[in-house]
Amino acid sequence: MSEAPAAQDADQDVLVVRQLSDGILRLTLNNPPANALSIAMMDALQAALDDAGSDGDVRVVVIAAAGKVFSAGHDLKELTAHRSDKDRGRAFFEQTMRQCSELMMTITRLPKPVIAEVDGLATAAGCQLVATCDLAICTDTSTFCTPGVNIGLFCSTPMVAVSRAAHRKQAMEMLLTGETIDASTAKEFGLVNRIVPREYLRTVSDKYASSIASKSALTLKIGKEAFYQQIERPLAEAYDYTAWVMTENMLARDAEEGISAFLEKRDPKWSDR
Amino acid sequence: MSEAPAAQDADQDVLVVRQLSDGILRLTLNNPPANALSIAMMDALQAALDDAGSDGDVRVVVIAAAGKVFSAGHDLKELTAHRSDKDRGRAFFEQTMRQCSELMMTITRLPKPVIAEVDGLATAAGCQLVATCDLAICTDTSTFCTPGVNIGLFCSTPMVAVSRAAHRKQAMEMLLTGETIDASTAKEFGLVNRIVPREYLRTVSDKYASSIASKSALTLKIGKEAFYQQIERPLAEAYDYTAWVMTENMLARDAEEGISAFLEKRDPKWSDR
Amino acid sequence: MSEAPAAQDADQDVLVVRQLSDGILRLTLNNPPANALSIAMMDALQAALDDAGSDGDVRVVVIAAAGKVFSAGHDLKELTAHRSDKDRGRAFFEQTMRQCSELMMTITRLPKPVIAEVDGLATAAGCQLVATCDLAICTDTSTFCTPGVNIGLFCSTPMVAVSRAAHRKQAMEMLLTGETIDASTAKEFGLVNRIVPREYLRTVSDKYASSIASKSALTLKIGKEAFYQQIERPLAEAYDYTAWVMTENMLARDAEEGISAFLEKRDPKWSDR
Repeated sequence: MSEAPAAQDADQDVLVVRQLSDGILRLTLNNPPANALSIAMMDALQAALDDAGSDGDVRVVVIAAAGKVFSAGHDLKELTAHRSDKDRGRAFFEQTMRQCSELMMTITRLPKPVIAEVDGLATAAGCQLVATCDLAICTDTSTFCTPGVNIGLFCSTPMVAVSRAAHRKQAMEMLLTGETIDASTAKEFGLVNRIVPREYLRTVSDKYASSIASKSALTLKIGKEAFYQQIERPLAEAYDYTAWVMTENMLARDAEEGISAFLEKRDPKWSDR
Repeated sequence: MSEAPAAQDADQDVLVVRQLSDGILRLTLNNPPANALSIAMMDALQAALDDAGSDGDVRVVVIAAAGKVFSAGHDLKELTAHRSDKDRGRAFFEQTMRQCSELMMTITRLPKPVIAEVDGLATAAGCQLVATCDLAICTDTSTFCTPGVNIGLFCSTPMVAVSRAAHRKQAMEMLLTGETIDASTAKEFGLVNRIVPREYLRTVSDKYASSIASKSALTLKIGKEAFYQQIERPLAEAYDYTAWVMTENMLARDAEEGISAFLEKRDPKWSDR
Repeated sequence: MSEAPAAQDADQDVLVVRQLSDGILRLTLNNPPANALSIAMMDALQAALDDAGSDGDVRVVVIAAAGKVFSAGHDLKELTAHRSDKDRGRAFFEQTMRQCSELMMTITRLPKPVIAEVDGLATAAGCQLVATCDLAICTDTSTFCTPGVNIGLFCSTPMVAVSRAAHRKQAMEMLLTGETIDASTAKEFGLVNRIVPREYLRTVSDKYASSIASKSALTLKIGKEAFYQQIERPLAEAYDYTAWVMTENMLARDAEEGISAFLEKRDPKWSDR
């Protein structure tokens, strides 16, 4: 159990609301209307994710948002305020970009699946957040863009996630034009997995997360880590690595139980972790 | 000519039926209903592919399957039986995973195009087999999944092939949910190239393979090898390498003949190899 | 200003017609019907791109073509003529392939967005040219193929661009079959961004290019360079690199102006470069 327990937040007046239910930790960005990724918001999300990583009760993380904007990305007012620093803001800008990258890497490295649940606009680093999550579900009225080019600040860190989710020309289209794409295009591009009407979003999202939460936590951890490790390796190395992962996985209790249950046509009983 | 000739199998009671006709070697997984990739099945497929690689009469390989399941992946009963080994099965699991990876690498490294012809369910390492083939054609009722997560054994080796065929979030969807996708989704994901109604599968597959078999075997060999070599290199290196490949290709007899035939508006006559 | 000014070509009897208007440099391949990438054509395009790179008046480059064929790729007659050289053409073939790769790398490294405007057939190195451009727009009757396999000369350099734009099996389909795909399939594959009816091509293309030309040239330069740099790096390295890029970008005058303008709800005024 982590220091800050991932339990229901009694106080709803926080930047990231945490709700844990049946193994699903729901993190709601709670600073509408923009849900900007200010230092404070990134701190809160980072802390929630760090806790989730070490909390045995959390099997799946869902990142949602309050209001009509999932997240508008960096807090431009906060950034601009630091232009009057002695170094013209360099240190603060660097801190912001590093912290944001660290946050995205945390999602990728978290030993639990992370699902973005989007209802509204996800822009710049907000779009990056969606692209970074392992899976994403959105309403049919959700929209996505990387509009930094319009304000002289190219979405260079968002492009890392977007260009790894979509084809190159599709990512370039978003980055060079800054134009907004709809949910259907986002699905075609590979930024989201499922689109649902707004009234069913929570129902479908819960079902989706529950389905994954019902799997062996150890197996999800093994698989997610292996995915991001192998995808950066040449083919032969990727096979050497995953063949070893599969062998270790076979020797874990949950694989023995899962395969036995399957052969005996009964439900498996996973170990706690 | 290889030791085990890639001719018609007189005996149909084999794990992999080999049929050679007009340069097309048809390998049929022949252990329905599951066509599991047991050690014996992988041995048979590996031998058939090794022979095909060195057999000058084989220009294209088609991998098909008998029955309603293309392949259900590893043989779980065979794996489970080895849990009573002194090492709890470690050596056998490692052998299985290594052999399966070797089989997939063999398909990628084979100097001849390999086409998966799928009619039915392709699951786990069976889905990996489809994803690994250079091309894939399937019936409109075929389905695909990587359901290892449901039995505590994440599809970590299948993910190598699936994550290189599809977008990341699409691969993650299959891997984390274990859910089955239909033929249309598989085509959208990039796992298959063509979908045909069942009654036309063989006709279309034959035509597809014949079309490729009519090309210069040397040219196919040069191109396939270059494809998998260059895709793992940075852009500038990939160009240095392929510029060299193109130059060598230009100096080969088949390029001289092919280009001459094209300029003279006649059919080319390829050399034997 | 470069030596060869990127101004309107008085003489239309050139291989590449240059037209500069409102920051958009329009380069028209002007050797119909094939617009083959002969040495002379590649020389002309290379010179035009080199000039564009250093010409402060050029903000966006559009590559179009005269006639019904965008480009049919290498000049097979020119290549064949060199078979009678003492070295059977080796030196000339090598020169051709190296020059073509250099041309493609120039497009990728150009500090300005390059848009392919296609109306007709783009084949072999012509298809590579489209795949290499940052963005592509085409008419609904445009077609694309990499048919080298049909003439014994596998499209090995084109595959570098095509396999980085599309999914592997889709690229393999084009390369192994040599078949022609339509505009809709090309968009699905990721080779083009937008499809328009022929009568609107120029209007839409101009609007598309103008929209991008209205952004800060410095920001476009920073972003395009970062895109191709980061995409070849592992995730963690890509983030380290782009976090640095974003910090430097924030300190540039155009970001300060762009963000201020955004916060003050007015149009930004970009610096000249």
